[in-house]
Parts: sequence; structure tokens; C-alpha cells
Amino acid sequence: MISGKKQATMNNLFADLPTDLPEELVEVLAENQHVRIERIISNGHASPDGFCYDQEEAEWVVVLKGEAKLLLKGDDEPIYMKVGDHINIPAHRKHRVEWTCEDEPTVWLAVFYKD
Amino acid sequence: MISGKKQATMNNLFADLPTDLPEELVEVLAENQHVRIERIISNGHASPDGFCYDQEEAEWVVVLKGEAKLLLKGDDEPIYMKVGDHINIPAHRKHRVEWTCEDEPTVWLAVFYKD
Repeated sequence: MISGKKQATMNNLFADLPTDLPEELVEVLAENQHVRIERIISNGHASPDGFCYDQEEAEWVVVLKGEAKLLLKGDDEPIYMKVGDHINIPAHRKHRVEWTCEDEPTVWLAVFYKD
Repeated sequence: MISGKKQATMNNLFADLPTDLPEELVEVLAENQHVRIERIISNGHASPDGFCYDQEEAEWVVVLKGEAKLLLKGDDEPIYMKVGDHINIPAHRKHRVEWTCEDEPTVWLAVFYKD
């Protein structure tokens, strides 16, 4: 059973973008035991120095507004992501957000799912 | 295990939009036993008269380009969806696409998942 969003209510991914964003903002849009769909908003945020995500779940992620640089550990260079760019990150593939633009919010849509 | 997209290759949701689209175009972006992420491109397409989707899986869907009208069976009026609008359709909630705009392709991103 999905939690929360059983009713077919509509929202917009680009609505309610905060103007002041001291921390990344993560909102769960839909979720059950297998999958979790999140909107993540960054604004100049990056992962802390030396930090890498090491996730139990695979993550399919797309940039829908703004721009970002994502580093997959072991790669020499981060991947530049502009609007529409999407990537699938297997579970336990270590990665970090190197950079997000400061001029406007960066809106990510991420689907985390168990293998 | 995810099929296909184990490698972290990047693609763009707005790339390779066909100019001539006799049928809706469905592409699977990532998939495993629990979840399937699809890019769907419509251009003036609608569900056939009288047809409703009746899906085993729940579907979270967003319009990322273009515009559409989605009818949830039992509702009096279709839901107008513009860019960024997203909705969660529970499994077996019957629905149909009433209309998509003809001026440009409508790009949907759909996440199908088992409850």
C-alpha cells in the first residue's frame, strides 16, 4: 500500500519553490515498500567535503530545473547535468553532488527503488 | 537487478523527440521487478473512445512538456495537466487520456510500481 497519496490529488513539481533555502529540501511525493519518489530542491548546495552517498537502493534521478554536477566515485570528472538529463545510479555506487547552481533552485526528481 | 541501465550513462528526457508520431511512443528508462520508469511521448493522441486503463500497478505520472487532460473514471470532468503537474493513480483506478496538445509533443514521465 502506498502511504499518503492514495487520493488522486494533483501537485506541481515547480510550485512552492522556497526563496530561502539554508538546507536542501526533500519532499516524498509517493512511497511504498519498494519505491520512493522524491522532489529534492538545491540552491548552491553540494555534498559535504569528502562525503559520498552509499545507498541500499538504486536511484534514478533527473534534473528538471537548474543545473548540477554529480560525481560518481572512481570517475575522474563529475557529470554535468542540465534540465532533462537523467541517470541511473545502482545501489552502493558511491556518489556525491559536487555543485548546484546558485542563480536559481535546482529541482531534482529522484526515484529510489530496491533491487 | 535492474535490467538494461546498470551503467551510469546519461540521457535527456527532451532529446530525440520525434517530429512525426503516428502512435504514442513509450520508452522504458529503468525497470526491475518492482518498478518501471517510462518516458511517454504523445502528440495529439488520446485513449481510444470508451477505453480505460485498468492497471495492476500504481502509477505516479508527471507532465514535463506540453499539456494533457486525464480523466479518472467516475469523475465528472477531466483533470487538466500542465508542465510539472503530477498525480498518483492507485492500481485499478480506471483512467484515460482525454486529450494531449497537438502543437508540440507532450512528454510524460511515469513511474509504475507494485503495491
